[in-house]
Amino acid sequence: MPSRFTLANAIRALSMDAVQAANSGHPGAPMGMADIAEVLWNDHLKHNPGNPTWPDRDRFVLSNGHGSMLLYSLLHLSGYDLAIDDIKQFRQLHSRTPGHPELGYTPGVETTTGPLGQGLANAVGLALAERTLAAQYNRPGHDIVNHRTWCFVGDGCLMEGISHEACSLAGTQGLGKLTVIYDDNGISIDGEVAGWFTDDTAKRFEAYNWQVIADVDGHDPAAIEDAINAATQDDQRPTLIICRTVIGFGAPNKQGTGACHGAALGEDEVAAARQRLEWSHPPFHVPDEVYAGWNADAAGQQAEDEWRQHFARYAEAYPELAAELERRWRGELPGDLGGSALIEDAQQACDTLASRKASLGVLNHLGPRLPELLGGSADLAPSNLTIWEGARAISAQAPDGNYLHYGVREFAMGAIMNGISMHGGFIPYGATFLTFMEYMHNAVRMAAIARRQVIFVYTHDSIGLGEDGPTHQPIEQLNALRITPNLATWRPCDATETSVAWLAALKRQDGPTALVFSRQGLPGQQRDVAQLAAIERGGYVLDDCEGTPELILIATGSEVGLAMEAATQLNDQGRQVRVVSMPCASEFDAQDADYQEAVLPPTVTRRLAIEASHPDYWRKYVGPRGNVIGMTGYGESGKAEDLFRHFGFTVENVVDKARSLLD
Amino acid sequence: MPSRFTLANAIRALSMDAVQAANSGHPGAPMGMADIAEVLWNDHLKHNPGNPTWPDRDRFVLSNGHGSMLLYSLLHLSGYDLAIDDIKQFRQLHSRTPGHPELGYTPGVETTTGPLGQGLANAVGLALAERTLAAQYNRPGHDIVNHRTWCFVGDGCLMEGISHEACSLAGTQGLGKLTVIYDDNGISIDGEVAGWFTDDTAKRFEAYNWQVIADVDGHDPAAIEDAINAATQDDQRPTLIICRTVIGFGAPNKQGTGACHGAALGEDEVAAARQRLEWSHPPFHVPDEVYAGWNADAAGQQAEDEWRQHFARYAEAYPELAAELERRWRGELPGDLGGSALIEDAQQACDTLASRKASLGVLNHLGPRLPELLGGSADLAPSNLTIWEGARAISAQAPDGNYLHYGVREFAMGAIMNGISMHGGFIPYGATFLTFMEYMHNAVRMAAIARRQVIFVYTHDSIGLGEDGPTHQPIEQLNALRITPNLATWRPCDATETSVAWLAALKRQDGPTALVFSRQGLPGQQRDVAQLAAIERGGYVLDDCEGTPELILIATGSEVGLAMEAATQLNDQGRQVRVVSMPCASEFDAQDADYQEAVLPPTVTRRLAIEASHPDYWRKYVGPRGNVIGMTGYGESGKAEDLFRHFGFTVENVVDKARSLLD
Repeated sequence: MPSRFTLANAIRALSMDAVQAANSGHPGAPMGMADIAEVLWNDHLKHNPGNPTWPDRDRFVLSNGHGSMLLYSLLHLSGYDLAIDDIKQFRQLHSRTPGHPELGYTPGVETTTGPLGQGLANAVGLALAERTLAAQYNRPGHDIVNHRTWCFVGDGCLMEGISHEACSLAGTQGLGKLTVIYDDNGISIDGEVAGWFTDDTAKRFEAYNWQVIADVDGHDPAAIEDAINAATQDDQRPTLIICRTVIGFGAPNKQGTGACHGAALGEDEVAAARQRLEWSHPPFHVPDEVYAGWNADAAGQQAEDEWRQHFARYAEAYPELAAELERRWRGELPGDLGGSALIEDAQQACDTLASRKASLGVLNHLGPRLPELLGGSADLAPSNLTIWEGARAISAQAPDGNYLHYGVREFAMGAIMNGISMHGGFIPYGATFLTFMEYMHNAVRMAAIARRQVIFVYTHDSIGLGEDGPTHQPIEQLNALRITPNLATWRPCDATETSVAWLAALKRQDGPTALVFSRQGLPGQQRDVAQLAAIERGGYVLDDCEGTPELILIATGSEVGLAMEAATQLNDQGRQVRVVSMPCASEFDAQDADYQEAVLPPTVTRRLAIEASHPDYWRKYVGPRGNVIGMTGYGESGKAEDLFRHFGFTVENVVDKARSLLD
Repeated sequence: MPSRFTLANAIRALSMDAVQAANSGHPGAPMGMADIAEVLWNDHLKHNPGNPTWPDRDRFVLSNGHGSMLLYSLLHLSGYDLAIDDIKQFRQLHSRTPGHPELGYTPGVETTTGPLGQGLANAVGLALAERTLAAQYNRPGHDIVNHRTWCFVGDGCLMEGISHEACSLAGTQGLGKLTVIYDDNGISIDGEVAGWFTDDTAKRFEAYNWQVIADVDGHDPAAIEDAINAATQDDQRPTLIICRTVIGFGAPNKQGTGACHGAALGEDEVAAARQRLEWSHPPFHVPDEVYAGWNADAAGQQAEDEWRQHFARYAEAYPELAAELERRWRGELPGDLGGSALIEDAQQACDTLASRKASLGVLNHLGPRLPELLGGSADLAPSNLTIWEGARAISAQAPDGNYLHYGVREFAMGAIMNGISMHGGFIPYGATFLTFMEYMHNAVRMAAIARRQVIFVYTHDSIGLGEDGPTHQPIEQLNALRITPNLATWRPCDATETSVAWLAALKRQDGPTALVFSRQGLPGQQRDVAQLAAIERGGYVLDDCEGTPELILIATGSEVGLAMEAATQLNDQGRQVRVVSMPCASEFDAQDADYQEAVLPPTVTRRLAIEASHPDYWRKYVGPRGNVIGMTGYGESGKAEDLFRHFGFTVENVVDKARSLLD
């Protein structure tokens, strides 16, 4: 049996070889954290390389994702379906070993960690999902959900603000099965961090109610072992293990310096490192006995088998619970959500209602049918209206709840939701004001890249927010969401469209959805059966004239009512005007050309879009002969009705602009 | 002389009256922090209501900006040009008392604090600017820059991640003249914060190397006085004063609860509060003796006069320094930046150069001429190339530098730059990768709303970033910047356009500029004198055919070279093709219609835009007959050249797409 040092050196060799072959990448972190990773993966991590999606596996997150070769080495060495040829293709187009860990590219990769700090917040989400699911489904003698979350972080992750948000919340929640290991190597891209990062990190995390195990020698397997054991002893608090390490450990001339952080070591230094590490094998060659020392197939299969036997006993004792849990793991919706009735009832009522209030109504309908919903808000629950009748706050004392008070932490909320989704068994939704989306936009992007079903709820969607003023009124945010690839953005105009939007978000399992709701009341619109069915196509004719229209009004959300009133006036004046409601442009764009042309006939070039948002997005629908009533500057503080009037969102102005297109 | 309690009650009364009149706003924070504010403003704050822009005034930031009535009350009571009628117009359209503090709306308001946490980071920027300017210009016996920065924060600010980033850096920098006072009232919008915010905040800030004065009774003027005195004693560390307060203090039935946080108290409760506070005056009435107790005109004028006398002595001793400092305070550029030579030299050389490298060349040219430049990067200096030859790191030991290592803290970098700009005397620039712009986007927005000259440098501007993969490759970010009102976004195609872009950013004093640069080399383009002069118009004809073109290629940045090669092929094939380079669309949009139509003749409807970014933005220029070669999905990890080929950024594909428009 090879020594621990030799096992760790397999990571170092693969990492420096792969980076050297690509002439691109980060050898420093994998070489520095190799000893820690070796102890964790060989002695503690519960996983089965033969089945990377086994539900009760431990979750491992590399938040310092630039050190991806550490993770690829671990997956390759322990027996995952990741061959040495994949390692040789590190950072090449279409390889399974991209520059940063990407969900869906590599078996065993649990998260798309993305830019620094988000992996750590994902890990908080994973740990929170585990504890919540365990509390909801475990029964005495049946801990069928019982796994740990491990996360590696570097200096960068801990400088990022999201680390504060996520770790503060993890401490309040007492996530005892979360262990974070900090690669304290004193180096970041600009050089020695002493010039810009002098936190007493141990003290900082103690202030968050974490167990902190500081001053661990990250190259001493026994010390690492002790620290991890201590971490698993405390089940009331998350644990931070601070390991002092040497970045690029083993590269004799570059270790401990920024030179080995983010560039290939160079042939000479690689050779020198081989010598220093007494690793005499050629590039990409790992001896059989080293593979044998790493292989986790048998142990992993045994662990999974034991768990499956346990789960079978649980299913016998609690057949309904087991069936529901398995359904949630599969990510299947229950048979009937009562969606049609929901939509028809909303249409029947046809009430004037703020769409955020309509959304609460939808949640009250769906909540009891969907135990996988895990809601929340970043301290705006009374405004976002996300607490439905059956919502119960999750806490250390009540871990089986279904609602999170995220606090004023938008970005962590987004990344934690992503982590909850990556865990499986949940559909997370979380809310804030639309403007504050900017604090969390990159988490929305990560959900879209990783193709996770996460529902982002944004209320107070325009200058209709009113008195809070320009810094709180969204202008460009709606369009920024719309151009985020693989994100569906809905801005419904009434309670009926709100219901359709929620149902679409639930059906959309391969990506996130943004639901954008108004603060103020919106009139219900009349629809026939065909119109009702067309809403889910993202854009449809809400009101039409006889024959071919001379002008089309296109609107979303609160501006649809305005368009309808303007159309009535114009039609009364003998004009031929159509109104198109377009709650979800990406859905409309995904329809076939026939449908699109039926809604927006190419021959009708006089088109006026109306949206209390930046106008540029609508240019692609209105064309050069058309016009847009939008917001080209920032809003103001004032009553919503004063603002709408001031900025031209009046029937008069819509009619005027329409007439000047027609005349 | 009225008691301190009575003076403080004037704030409480005005705040609850104004919120009641508007039936909108936040009475809780002003009523809770009134005693603290009274002590600070009456005994410590150095300011002159008669001249709110006096350079050596203390800076006061209300980071919990929803409590804006606290600030408006203070300004009104102490003698600023803010009348009681302005207070009565609280939160009304076009008033000087908008819902949140907005720079430029109200005399004496120092910052557009925006969403929570950013005011705190602005304050760090203000304090850093003060220390840097002092170190650069003070001379023995002449402390002509010598003022303090005070900042109020609430629970929300301290939950936000940006508070971690900014305060960690403030501690490392040892900003001894920064004092933050925390309104520890235990309440946020969702209710009692104990459910989601249990940090030991004192310990957390000690971990940042701050002086912490905890457990101060925020309603005991003597205790507040002692704490502020202690804060001013420590000039090596910033100070956090933690004041326990009762939110809505004085409202007998609502104080201490969420009910008084963000809504009017109601007539009955306002009346009950008047009784409890023994404030018998009618709404909006403040007795003369209370005004007298608050008025700071005479003391303020005297303080300013003394400083002006001191400055006159300084100017006598150091005339050149004084002149330069006054120029910087006025925000005037020095007479000659050598801009024409810079541009002409770049054009002459016509090198193939990454625009980030060209940018470094520009900085090396401008740096010695512009002592007001204060540069930085969020730990990507070696990649962003922001450290020019004369850059010297700012630290507690070397406070007179001109460059900040911000650490991995993008959002704080943005908000700190805003604070530096709000201080005056500096033009801050700071860099990160374009993708990470999303971490700081809301700070960019605040600079745009507040009309501050801040230069945001973004390198690695497309899939050209290469191997780091999709999470690090910008797609939608460039367009998100372009639709941010009052932001100028430049994406230059070569060294010449890079020089023009930098000079435009320096000339643009009423708003921020984003400079977007490539990682990879870009070929220099030939231009005649007229073309050279046209660059600053944002879009211009870079290459033209004889006669009227049948097709226009529009491109920016790295895609301009591609368009030029494709145009050559097409013209060789006998087609009539024009190439338009559009480095700054907002500048182009600001040109008169004649110029725009000369560049993009309306009759030429066959147009093809090429940009390695989301295509939607370009629809407004190409119209329904045109097309866009862009990125509709996310990138991949791989060599840049492989990615450009894979995603269709090849001469062949441009020619193909052009021909299919033509045929």
